[in-house]
Formats: sequence, structure tokens, C-alpha cells
Amino acid sequence: MKLNFKRNDLLNAINIVLKAVSTKTTMPILECILIEAGKKGVYLTANDMELGIETKVENCEIMEEGKIAIEARLFSEIIRKISLDEESIVSLESDGNIVTIVCDNSTFRIQEKDPDQFPDLPSIDQDHYITLSQLTLKEIIRDTIFSISPNDSNKMMTGELFEVKGDLLKVVSLDGHRISIRNTALRETYNDVKVIIPGKTLNEVSKILSGDNDKDVVLFFSRNYVMFRFDETVMVSRLIDGEYFKIDSMLSSDYETKVVVNKKEFLDSIERSTILIRESDKKPLIMDIRDSSMGLKMHSMIGTMDADILIRKQGKDLMIGFNPKFLLDALRVIDDEEVSLYLTNPKAPCFIKDDDGKFIYLILPVNFNPDSY
Amino acid sequence: MKLNFKRNDLLNAINIVLKAVSTKTTMPILECILIEAGKKGVYLTANDMELGIETKVENCEIMEEGKIAIEARLFSEIIRKISLDEESIVSLESDGNIVTIVCDNSTFRIQEKDPDQFPDLPSIDQDHYITLSQLTLKEIIRDTIFSISPNDSNKMMTGELFEVKGDLLKVVSLDGHRISIRNTALRETYNDVKVIIPGKTLNEVSKILSGDNDKDVVLFFSRNYVMFRFDETVMVSRLIDGEYFKIDSMLSSDYETKVVVNKKEFLDSIERSTILIRESDKKPLIMDIRDSSMGLKMHSMIGTMDADILIRKQGKDLMIGFNPKFLLDALRVIDDEEVSLYLTNPKAPCFIKDDDGKFIYLILPVNFNPDSY
Repeated sequence: MKLNFKRNDLLNAINIVLKAVSTKTTMPILECILIEAGKKGVYLTANDMELGIETKVENCEIMEEGKIAIEARLFSEIIRKISLDEESIVSLESDGNIVTIVCDNSTFRIQEKDPDQFPDLPSIDQDHYITLSQLTLKEIIRDTIFSISPNDSNKMMTGELFEVKGDLLKVVSLDGHRISIRNTALRETYNDVKVIIPGKTLNEVSKILSGDNDKDVVLFFSRNYVMFRFDETVMVSRLIDGEYFKIDSMLSSDYETKVVVNKKEFLDSIERSTILIRESDKKPLIMDIRDSSMGLKMHSMIGTMDADILIRKQGKDLMIGFNPKFLLDALRVIDDEEVSLYLTNPKAPCFIKDDDGKFIYLILPVNFNPDSY
Repeated sequence: MKLNFKRNDLLNAINIVLKAVSTKTTMPILECILIEAGKKGVYLTANDMELGIETKVENCEIMEEGKIAIEARLFSEIIRKISLDEESIVSLESDGNIVTIVCDNSTFRIQEKDPDQFPDLPSIDQDHYITLSQLTLKEIIRDTIFSISPNDSNKMMTGELFEVKGDLLKVVSLDGHRISIRNTALRETYNDVKVIIPGKTLNEVSKILSGDNDKDVVLFFSRNYVMFRFDETVMVSRLIDGEYFKIDSMLSSDYETKVVVNKKEFLDSIERSTILIRESDKKPLIMDIRDSSMGLKMHSMIGTMDADILIRKQGKDLMIGFNPKFLLDALRVIDDEEVSLYLTNPKAPCFIKDDDGKFIYLILPVNFNPDSY
């Protein structure tokens, strides 16, 4: 194999596939990037057996076709440092055992790994799919990913439900204390789909997506896999097996108190209150909802914070406590200037939702002693 | 005590004294900032018993004088988050037990600590001193601090020698493998001084110094302490006790090979070679000095790198090995476009120095087997 790359195009492709390189594995080949040069161009692939990514390197010159595997982090570091000039030409030549990488005045020689050991990406049938703009998928992930569960005592909580019904995509994540729902209108009607995509996969794909509204991403769904195809990249991930939680019964639309509040002011005040929380001393944030103003109170071992913010209220007064982190997570991803909270009583969940039904955040309250506030 | 601050002026002062707040201590008072409001204004002080810092807060309104101590990191976080508007007014009122901090719509109430337990800064007699621009002191520290020893098996190696003779300041640091020397001409002649200042102190003072060439810093030296006075800040540090190493005998000016090389090209090539070094496998960088070019070679378990850079050479050819980190540390702080290396043989130190004698970096070579290169 003998190739010439532009340093920056090669580095961009490496950075994309690097997200599927295994860090902890007993199979050294999974720590490698596969480089394949053929008729269609040069492709890099990484695959940690949960997630696989293949991408095409732009502007390659192929003097001799071939296939090699090379330790991914080492290769990435060499290409990053071999030249500081983005336009430099990097040449790569393999003798089947040692790969020689030359750029400017530097020559690296590195042991190759056996490319035939490299696992193929699973092939996905293409009956079930949807098309979205890259920006939309990126936003859907950002708006829901925070409420997956970080530990996998319940595997399904570490992923997100992607449910397609006609021309609607509903994405749900939950961790036992809260539920995040994002509804998105699709451009056309598709076959129905209901799958659970691992949170790690969604995190990685959202880092690679360009966030461009004019560029699309296609999601293909099979029984065990989801494939994302966008730009010159293909990403294949295993799905999480099982029946997702039934959440519809929890989503009552009744409420007894509705609060409309300036989002930034609410967010800043909650952030301020968390100064007084230490790991060992998890205190709730108390919302004291009265006509036209809401008191926010944090009383901890360290000290107290009291803030008052203006609100518009419908319904009865209410004093209710929340884990401030859960409120912050939801408020941080809402782009609106004002948010609406729907509440019933101190034991019932709070709903933060918009009028169009695009997002719903359900947060369970926590117990507190009202006499100490 | 009752005070009004501009949020940003208070935060600036807190950030300065925070560097002398103790993080690991059995005395809780050392985790506090002392706030003193008197005739001369409002001063903040922190003191971890090795290093003490006192600074004046600008633009304070004093409604009632007084003195309080408050947990430093908590206070810093509250002031940082209490308002995002730099111009906001923060009011602070103490009842001798609880301090109330109010800004915009938020009120914090925090337990105070007993200010009388707070240790006084040591007083320094002012016979021995020098005056430098803040920029110069910052540069002197940057140019030498990397070659102090990080572990204190030899306490003196964790500090730097500051030696004043007439109108010359010589600063030396060494760690057993290398020596860094920076000579600075002073504006006038001062009393002779020879002290060892802890590296930690120099690191902290260099973070606070403005790097402004028009602003001065005065260093006062007593038997056990050094005091830095600049802007509205005073910083007092304990000195390291003992007689510093005699280094003059090591600084031979003889050499058999002189190499002049482009600094950036040399630095970039060495950085590139370090890709091939893993913690467990410390390999030297080999410099193969020939007429008009120098080969740089790194052969490790991971692979090899070879680079060739143009040089101007006087004297004989030489092949010599170094820990690449030591070369990098010195080259990174040299501002010149070209550097001169003075060498004798593969067992003798390399000197990197300029023609004016402003800096000297001595680096010991390492053993290697010439047959494998």
C-alpha cells in the first residue's frame, strides 16, 4: 500500500473513527484503525464491537492499493504532531509488516497489526429508516441525553427510546427520578420503529455530526443494530435489547398550579443555590410558589440562600422541593426565554413543557420538612 | 461590619489571596479569608503559614468597620456566582456570628469563623531589597522554574537560588540532571543577598504578577522570609534554610562542538519524537551531529523516528543522547530564533546559552548504545 494524504484531511478522518476505538480490551486489534485503499478511495474504520465507524478520507492519492491495521492512538498522535502545517503532504507506505510515515523532514516507522483480524462492520438491511437534518438529531440528543442513567443496574435506562409512528419521532430517556421526552415532526411518513439506542452511541454520534441544518443524516434500524449515515461517514451501533418502560400512564395533563418564569433568572438562581450543597449533604431546593413571586430556598449545613423571582401564576399556592441538579439539567437545554411549570401537590411530579408538545420534562419532587423553611 | 463592593473588584481580590489559602490543614482558620475594614480601606488576607497574601479591595464603601473570617472557597464561589454582572453591588454585613451577603435578588447567610484566631503575616525588615519590573520577574520565574525538583527528598532542590551581587541578580534552579541559570542586570546597585525561595511561592507570585513592564515589584529579603510588594498586594513567604549548591565548578566554558540550530525546528522535532515514549520505556533522543546537518533519532519499543535538521557546526562530529523532556523544557522558554549548543563528548553536559550570558541551561547526557543507531 502506498498513499499520499493532506495532513488535515487525514487527521479529520482519524478523529471521527477514533470514537469507536476500544480503550479497554483484551483484543489488541480493536485498538487499531483499519486503513483500506481501493477503487472507491481510502477508508478508515474502527470498531469496538458495540460501535463501529467507517469514514472516507478526502483528497487522497493512491499509488498502490492495500489494507493495513495500525494502533489508533499512536497513529493519531503521529499525524497530529508530524507537521503543524495543515496543508502538508503525509505519505504512508506499507511493506506488509512495517508502515513508514513521512512528512517534511521526519520519518516514523511503526509495526503494523494483521488487518485480516479486524472485525467487519455488521451489515444492516435498509427497510426501516428515517431522515433528519444533522442539526435536529444533534439537538434531540442534547435535549434528552442528560436523563439517562449512568450506571447500568438497569441496562435499558442507559439508552434512549427512539419511536417512529407515521411522521412523528418520539425520543425518551429516564433514570427513575425524571423523564425527558422530545417529539419531532418528520418530513414524511415512515415505517413504524421502536428501538433503544445506547447513550454512549448517541453521545459519540452527536460529537461527529456537523450541526448543519442543510446536511442530513439517515438512521437505518434493524433488529439488533442502528446505522447512522451522514457525509462520508457510516456509524453502526448495537441496540439495547428489551421492552422499554411504559410511560404514558405517568404523563397526566392535569395540574393545580401553573407557573411561568423567566428561564435565565430561574436557572441562575438555582445554580447559585448549589454552592451550598456538599456531596455528603444533599439538600433540596425549595420552591415557595405564591401569587406573582416564587421564593427559592436552600438551607444546608453550610449556610442558607434565599432568592425571590417574579412569576405569573395560575392556581393555588404550593411549596415543593426538588433536587436542583434535575431542574438545572432540563432548564439548560430549553432555548425558550420563558418556561412553564405544571404542578399538583408536594408529592406529585413537576412537568416542564412547551405549548407545542415538542418537549416534556417530568421531575419527581423530594421530601422535606416544611417547618424548617 | 457593613460593606458594599463592586462584584468584580471583590472577586479580583479574592482570586489573589486564594493562592495562599490552605487546602490540607488541621486548622480550619487557615481555610479562611480574613476581611478587615478600617481607615485605610478593606483588605483581604490569606495565610497557610508558608505563604501569606494581603491585598486591598478597590472601590469599597465602608458603612461600618470591622473584621471577620469566612471560609475562602465558599466565599469565592458565592461571589463568583451571586451575579453575572461585573458591575453589580455586593453588600456584606456581619453580626459577629453570621455574615449576610446580598446581591440583586439573592441573599446568602453563612457562619463566620473567629477572626482573632487568624495568624498575622510576619513582619519583614526592609534593609535588603531589589526592584524589578513585574514582567521581568515573571520571565525569570518562567525561565527557571521547570528545573526545580518536584519531590522534596532534597528540600533545597524544590526552591530557587536568588543571589544579588551589586547590580546583578542571578537565579538558579537544579534537579540533579540539569541546571538553569538566569542573569538579570538590575537598575541600580543593592546590598548583597543570597536566599532560596520555595518553588511553590514563585509559581504563585508569577500567576498574580500582571506581566506589565511599566509596573514594579519590590522583593524584601530577611533572614527567614521574602516579601513581594506590588500593586495593592503584599505576599510573604518563608525561605528554604541552608547553603545552596556550589555550581561554578560545573560551568566550564570549554567545548569541542558548537551547534547553531533553528529553535522552532529543533523543538518541533523533539516533540514529535516523544510520541514514541511510554512511561515504562524511557528512551533517549539521539543527536547525531555532522557537518551542516543534525540527525535526531528515537528508537523505542513502539517504533522509530528519524528527522534531519540543518545546523551550522564548529568543531568535531558527535553522537550524544538526552532525555528529550529536558531539552524541551529549556527550548520552550527561550525566545530567540536560533539557539547555540556547546558540547564536548557523549559523557559531558550540553550547554545551551546565549552570547550575552543572560541564560545558561546545562543538561546532562544519558548513556546509550551507539551501535543500535
